[in-house]
Amino acid sequence: MSETTYKYFKVTVPEPWIAHVEIHRPGHLNAVSDDVWREMRVVFHRISIDPSVRSVVFSGSGEKAFSVGIDLKWISKEGSPFIPNPDEHVDPARRATALRRLGVELQECISSIEKCEKPVICTMHGYALGLATDICSAADVRICSKDTVFCVKEVDLGIASDVGILSRLPKAVGSYTWVKDVAMTGRNFGADEALRVGFVSSVLPTKKDAVDEAFKVARVLSEKSPVAVQTVKHFLDYSREHTVAEGLQYQLAYNISAIQAKDVPTAIAALKSKKRPVFEKL
Amino acid sequence: MSETTYKYFKVTVPEPWIAHVEIHRPGHLNAVSDDVWREMRVVFHRISIDPSVRSVVFSGSGEKAFSVGIDLKWISKEGSPFIPNPDEHVDPARRATALRRLGVELQECISSIEKCEKPVICTMHGYALGLATDICSAADVRICSKDTVFCVKEVDLGIASDVGILSRLPKAVGSYTWVKDVAMTGRNFGADEALRVGFVSSVLPTKKDAVDEAFKVARVLSEKSPVAVQTVKHFLDYSREHTVAEGLQYQLAYNISAIQAKDVPTAIAALKSKKRPVFEKL
Amino acid sequence: MSETTYKYFKVTVPEPWIAHVEIHRPGHLNAVSDDVWREMRVVFHRISIDPSVRSVVFSGSGEKAFSVGIDLKWISKEGSPFIPNPDEHVDPARRATALRRLGVELQECISSIEKCEKPVICTMHGYALGLATDICSAADVRICSKDTVFCVKEVDLGIASDVGILSRLPKAVGSYTWVKDVAMTGRNFGADEALRVGFVSSVLPTKKDAVDEAFKVARVLSEKSPVAVQTVKHFLDYSREHTVAEGLQYQLAYNISAIQAKDVPTAIAALKSKKRPVFEKL
Amino acid sequence: MSETTYKYFKVTVPEPWIAHVEIHRPGHLNAVSDDVWREMRVVFHRISIDPSVRSVVFSGSGEKAFSVGIDLKWISKEGSPFIPNPDEHVDPARRATALRRLGVELQECISSIEKCEKPVICTMHGYALGLATDICSAADVRICSKDTVFCVKEVDLGIASDVGILSRLPKAVGSYTWVKDVAMTGRNFGADEALRVGFVSSVLPTKKDAVDEAFKVARVLSEKSPVAVQTVKHFLDYSREHTVAEGLQYQLAYNISAIQAKDVPTAIAALKSKKRPVFEKL
Amino acid sequence: MSETTYKYFKVTVPEPWIAHVEIHRPGHLNAVSDDVWREMRVVFHRISIDPSVRSVVFSGSGEKAFSVGIDLKWISKEGSPFIPNPDEHVDPARRATALRRLGVELQECISSIEKCEKPVICTMHGYALGLATDICSAADVRICSKDTVFCVKEVDLGIASDVGILSRLPKAVGSYTWVKDVAMTGRNFGADEALRVGFVSSVLPTKKDAVDEAFKVARVLSEKSPVAVQTVKHFLDYSREHTVAEGLQYQLAYNISAIQAKDVPTAIAALKSKKRPVFEKL
Amino acid sequence: MSETTYKYFKVTVPEPWIAHVEIHRPGHLNAVSDDVWREMRVVFHRISIDPSVRSVVFSGSGEKAFSVGIDLKWISKEGSPFIPNPDEHVDPARRATALRRLGVELQECISSIEKCEKPVICTMHGYALGLATDICSAADVRICSKDTVFCVKEVDLGIASDVGILSRLPKAVGSYTWVKDVAMTGRNFGADEALRVGFVSSVLPTKKDAVDEAFKVARVLSEKSPVAVQTVKHFLDYSREHTVAEGLQYQLAYNISAIQAKDVPTAIAALKSKKRPVFEKL
Repeated sequence: MSETTYKYFKVTVPEPWIAHVEIHRPGHLNAVSDDVWREMRVVFHRISIDPSVRSVVFSGSGEKAFSVGIDLKWISKEGSPFIPNPDEHVDPARRATALRRLGVELQECISSIEKCEKPVICTMHGYALGLATDICSAADVRICSKDTVFCVKEVDLGIASDVGILSRLPKAVGSYTWVKDVAMTGRNFGADEALRVGFVSSVLPTKKDAVDEAFKVARVLSEKSPVAVQTVKHFLDYSREHTVAEGLQYQLAYNISAIQAKDVPTAIAALKSKKRPVFEKL
Repeated sequence: MSETTYKYFKVTVPEPWIAHVEIHRPGHLNAVSDDVWREMRVVFHRISIDPSVRSVVFSGSGEKAFSVGIDLKWISKEGSPFIPNPDEHVDPARRATALRRLGVELQECISSIEKCEKPVICTMHGYALGLATDICSAADVRICSKDTVFCVKEVDLGIASDVGILSRLPKAVGSYTWVKDVAMTGRNFGADEALRVGFVSSVLPTKKDAVDEAFKVARVLSEKSPVAVQTVKHFLDYSREHTVAEGLQYQLAYNISAIQAKDVPTAIAALKSKKRPVFEKL
Repeated sequence: MSETTYKYFKVTVPEPWIAHVEIHRPGHLNAVSDDVWREMRVVFHRISIDPSVRSVVFSGSGEKAFSVGIDLKWISKEGSPFIPNPDEHVDPARRATALRRLGVELQECISSIEKCEKPVICTMHGYALGLATDICSAADVRICSKDTVFCVKEVDLGIASDVGILSRLPKAVGSYTWVKDVAMTGRNFGADEALRVGFVSSVLPTKKDAVDEAFKVARVLSEKSPVAVQTVKHFLDYSREHTVAEGLQYQLAYNISAIQAKDVPTAIAALKSKKRPVFEKL
Repeated sequence: MSETTYKYFKVTVPEPWIAHVEIHRPGHLNAVSDDVWREMRVVFHRISIDPSVRSVVFSGSGEKAFSVGIDLKWISKEGSPFIPNPDEHVDPARRATALRRLGVELQECISSIEKCEKPVICTMHGYALGLATDICSAADVRICSKDTVFCVKEVDLGIASDVGILSRLPKAVGSYTWVKDVAMTGRNFGADEALRVGFVSSVLPTKKDAVDEAFKVARVLSEKSPVAVQTVKHFLDYSREHTVAEGLQYQLAYNISAIQAKDVPTAIAALKSKKRPVFEKL
Repeated sequence: MSETTYKYFKVTVPEPWIAHVEIHRPGHLNAVSDDVWREMRVVFHRISIDPSVRSVVFSGSGEKAFSVGIDLKWISKEGSPFIPNPDEHVDPARRATALRRLGVELQECISSIEKCEKPVICTMHGYALGLATDICSAADVRICSKDTVFCVKEVDLGIASDVGILSRLPKAVGSYTWVKDVAMTGRNFGADEALRVGFVSSVLPTKKDAVDEAFKVARVLSEKSPVAVQTVKHFLDYSREHTVAEGLQYQLAYNISAIQAKDVPTAIAALKSKKRPVFEKL
Repeated sequence: MSETTYKYFKVTVPEPWIAHVEIHRPGHLNAVSDDVWREMRVVFHRISIDPSVRSVVFSGSGEKAFSVGIDLKWISKEGSPFIPNPDEHVDPARRATALRRLGVELQECISSIEKCEKPVICTMHGYALGLATDICSAADVRICSKDTVFCVKEVDLGIASDVGILSRLPKAVGSYTWVKDVAMTGRNFGADEALRVGFVSSVLPTKKDAVDEAFKVARVLSEKSPVAVQTVKHFLDYSREHTVAEGLQYQLAYNISAIQAKDVPTAIAALKSKKRPVFEKL
């Protein structure tokens, strides 16, 4: 992977097969405005089809926050999508069309993490508020440090989020009463609560520990058949949205080519010989 | 909200914006017969469209029970829907039609809690058996006291519940083996087990504590934009039944008018000034 | 139930109404090849329609393993579905057709546990790896001993499982990040972790304890109305795949005949008299 | 059926088992305002559960029109749902809530025809414009006279209909290009075109002929088992919305009580003896 | 294909690649009882996986009828599924279970035509009543002779069909009012009406002409790539049940192995050289 | 709309509000290769958000063909997606990944017509073969000249189309037996047959007549409220993929902002005054 320069993201390849994506907006606690989310889509789209990457660690740069969420300065300006200019009397239906186009774009930018063909391990620390919780809910594996503070903040802006959290959270954790509690009250919740309800897989003492743990997982994934790992991600996301019967039918249709990969005899031989297998790029 | 007099329910407004609904059938441990569930629908339907209410606390009156569930005396009488009069030889298809109409009505009465536009925080204490478990599973947030005993009792009446619990429970908690265990055995489970599997959000020492906690949550909700809070409830219930992609599409269609609420600039201004926002009725 | 002799399964009726099914392939740690899964389908199909059985305990014979999963010897032979004979140049589309037919059959064999009309309580101990985890995920109630080791192993064979675990696991437990973690890494997880995420209902010290516990549950089920118990199993599996509204509609359509069972007055009379009810065969 | 007096509808029982419902707003060409659609719901709801009715003929009174659709005078008044009072500055989100509640009610009123348990044969003549086309698309069988003029008029009010035609039309006829043509252009189409695309079942020379033909069909239906006829209506509406596999599953669940009707042996005996069967009320 | 002897079916291979299946119950106008439908499943299952067959012509033997439908003698006997023995007082729920198992089996027997991997061209002539209409609606292409009489007869037995026609007919033709008309009235309809609404593809003067036409279509299909033809059948049946987006996703997953068939370069070379291609068995 | 120069398309604005898009590949009968379909996506994406366009006429330039479909020269070259280079031994799973990415892109390019916010009236003439039939099936209204020849050609390339026709055709016309016939045989069908089954809305004598007719429709659409027209297109495509109940719910959510358009009072006033309304850009 050639290391591209981005404005709001640092993307590096600290070891073979693993990309490290960092939201990087120092001085703003990685707050997210429209420029940030558009660039995020570019980042994940490129990684998705880059054969030299097999897994992704996603985190926020700096010590204080994964991200404080939407850039409050940006949205509270007159003329922002949320604060129309008082002089303009825009027709509600035409304002609706503009809002819909913006919304579709923001939804796609966040979904680019989920649609990235490579697994994304997201580590959160410090603040992970509002839009930041939306964003991390689109990742595959979530790991956080002890000090992380999450919230479904949008309700305090007078709106119900439509960019992901209210669609993904009921399918990401197993307690519907808890989901309604945090989404309607907008209250903060911490790392331990996130672990207890299953929103994160593990909690580590510090940001550094959390990122190290994410790299451990990423390394395990990068040593396996990329056909197998990427197909597992795809199958799980398919299953989340379909009945068991439909999941089985689709998986089989898809697998009858995937199973013909050379990776299968390679992996089986490695299992028997207990040597590390080597897989072709994908 | 004008305080209406009901036969089986006490409905009060102990503080602005918050309705308190109590099943109130003293001497019967709040047992539920057809008259009770029909009145329940009336209660929640009125609250749903009452602009002076922003959140609801739902509990059972008395110290012993949220409700013992279906009124055993009522259903075990000859001539009840379950014990046909032995002299009548009703055609099975015609008896089926009568049972279906009754069943649809009972389903709608219970679903009136879920369909109530305002969030419903349900507190359980003491017995919350059978039909009572069905009923509370239709609420948004569930809080209980330490002594609460739940069960999916219907199997002990020789029937599989068709009024809600077997539809909602698999989507309310995250352990499918646990759901099948309690639903097939009909065994009791207590507050701690309910918390562990995520069926309730929190467990408080006494009924009073649980109701106080429910009011705390209700108060938080009543101070936020009613557009936002009610939309969050609606979006989550929509998401539970749809794919992420469909959830995103619907939420955006809905939100392009909701986001035009004056509540949005009001809420953003309040966030910046750290003053409490005031929202118009809804 | 007449006790049939099987090659890979021991099927006994140690007490009235309860069948005990054991995978029995000593010397192979109950490894599963195509002959094994085809026989498994026969076993569960027969039990499904046997009126003398009301509940099933399913376990693995021997002390070391519920099952080590797919028979590695079988699949790593040249000419197996996964290791095509190098001399044959099979057309990829025709190999795909052969793989699809095999896959559909294997899916049906595993689903025969879920489709068995009688509830299946599965107890795991020792190894429960790969295909064994797929298999137990199709049971209704899962109980295991302290020493059980599970894993979603297929990724180490270079493939994404298409025989059930990736369809059922996201609906069996409540933490999606955990599901992706174990399914993509293929790492082992133990009894306590399985309990914490809700994959098993309870963990007992030894295999014997776990099987005893399974029989306790099976006994409770066998004393209830078989109409009610089997309908509950069916309704829950239906609800898992449908919206609440569709679940309610289907359940009512189905129940208007089930509720006409003599079991209902029998059960209600028993509840009132506190005597044990006796139900007709089903 | 007791003949109730309605304000906008004439409901008679000209022969046993058959109700005749007529929109009756002379001097307004049967135009439909909110009072009219609310009363329509009452009419069809009563018929739905009236055991003395087995089929319904639905038409418009007078010679000129089935109905000219929405009452243009009503909607073009200031203060109507579509023409807000210019002095009031209603918050777009709150106006949206009012519009949604009105819309849900109107949708339910129209759907009451489809949900009526008894089959509804609708005959159109003269004008059947806009909302009238929406309304007749909710009936089961459509018959019209030669002079009928239909259109999907809403686009000429500056809106896309959300009360039924755009949901039902693509499922009622088989030419999607034709559906888009008439729904986007709002152009008129006549009886012959309606027959050619399958929107109506037959075209008769005059209104009288069309109503007579509808009575013929209604009479055939009223002589058959009401269990069978009403179940066919219900199954077809279920199938329209579900896969074949889901249709088969639901129909069987439902039918296992319906098939136990005495109507089955009665009907079979009649078929063999070629005598007219007599069925119990439903 | 080895020509097996069946009791109720004649199966021949009159020319390479084409199987001819005839319902053959002389003296009973090909009436269908439980033995007949069970054998039909065996017939189509064998053909489905027989590589020497590429297309199927399905017809009824004799001059008078494709089939008169269900065997009225069989169902009108006491003790049949529809006429319970008056002495036995079977519990309605247990009778329901027996009816459900029978129903599932009959549904599967009819669906075996649809699930047959090879395309089935069905030709009807003379009577094609009730169950015969159910059966032919599961075929891929329907051709009939001028004299064919169809009907959805079940309503005259006092039941709503649950074995296919009410699920498939709304998706097989484009006029929903017509579907409701014929399914609720049970009236006969002829070849021309069937052609007009799109239930059959073509009408030929005589049975012989219709069978010849079916062989012409079958011959065209048998000369094409069997991978392509069978995949088209499968994709269309998938699309009928899914959204366009889901259809596209599934087709691509499936096709990425099918497209690797040698048939593709073979077919393209044939197209360019205008020579007849030769494809490997499937 | 600024007139952009394209390589394979001519895009003009011959009259206000109406864009004319022509496939323009003279000397190749408008054959479609990967460069062509990628450019087509650009064309329709730009028009989709261009406020100066209200309707689109889409046709093929030249007298002989709308388009002969996929560029046979391109796909029959060694190294094309369908004819792999014989020296390269590409792993089937990796070839599958490449094919899937190409397929997703091609699907999106064709779907760009359906997703274009403005209605697209497509006129076909002469050859409209294979991929050309796929393409026109994504348009809203289809009009053709007498001499048009269609076919679902892919089966003659040894493949089942996965780029749209097999998903859209079963929902575009009402005769499923006809769909299977033309899609499995790949046979040609002409304008009259296309009209009879409802694949086209009208047939005109010549290409010129057909294009003129398309402009007539486009002109009607361009004079109506663009909010209303575009919403109708969107609602119909939504309804095609959802149940009636879901359609109604979504339409209402969407409409509560669309109905607040100034277009509504403008349109109603115009209806009453019989003057032509003027609507703001969208």
